[in-house]
Amino acid sequence: MQDGTFASPGHPGDTARGDAYAADCPTRRLLDRVGDKWSVLILLLLGDSPRRFSELKRRIAGVSQKLLSQTLRSLERDGLVTREVEASVPIKVVYRVTPLGRELLGALRQMIDWAETRMGAVAAAQARYDARGEAAAEMVALPG
Amino acid sequence: MQDGTFASPGHPGDTARGDAYAADCPTRRLLDRVGDKWSVLILLLLGDSPRRFSELKRRIAGVSQKLLSQTLRSLERDGLVTREVEASVPIKVVYRVTPLGRELLGALRQMIDWAETRMGAVAAAQARYDARGEAAAEMVALPG
Repeated sequence: MQDGTFASPGHPGDTARGDAYAADCPTRRLLDRVGDKWSVLILLLLGDSPRRFSELKRRIAGVSQKLLSQTLRSLERDGLVTREVEASVPIKVVYRVTPLGRELLGALRQMIDWAETRMGAVAAAQARYDARGEAAAEMVALPG
Repeated sequence: MQDGTFASPGHPGDTARGDAYAADCPTRRLLDRVGDKWSVLILLLLGDSPRRFSELKRRIAGVSQKLLSQTLRSLERDGLVTREVEASVPIKVVYRVTPLGRELLGALRQMIDWAETRMGAVAAAQARYDARGEAAAEMVALPG
């Protein structure tokens, strides 16, 4: 990042290296999509094995049909996931992570692992932050 | 993830391990915050060295004052960043990444590195996806 060069990145199919710190770089929107929690949860599930829509829906508690469809379509468009329709009765639709999507799994797994193990530390920090805010508000409210 | 246990995670200050696949787990909102592109860009800049608000604003091209302030406040509340006011004229406000925030840097760096080097491959996948959609629309439009 921020090396100012747009040289060949050494990946076939790539033409230039992006710079997420530049305002107009498409990397930013890409970051938004892959950092989205639904994308993260889907990609990690597909990293374990190919799965059907209904299984994804069941595993990701509380996700709506619409959000899951939208996110899968966006992941498919970005080349991170494939959607295969199997000719069976009833029709079976199977999603798989692509090699391009698989490159992300290490980072996403670390991120989710951090969030799952450190949510207690984050909650404690939030409580301290909010208490400081309340203390400051009381100081202001004190007479004299 | 998904081991179904809420045992001690071995981190001081943590009380339980979260499960991002559970609908009501706070891990989900936490994932949203740390996966947000502004958080990623800020944390990586602060990972290099402490920085002032004005420097962050300059380095992250196109970010608004309001979004930068909001994101910094959210990162501070989550315990990922500290804000120090130095008694100088004019007053200097310096942001630093905390040890808790530093734990995330490896994953975030991988994510941004992937996005910057692979944006060409993603754009190519999008072009293929959109072309398939257009071809399918033409098939439908063909008479009989």
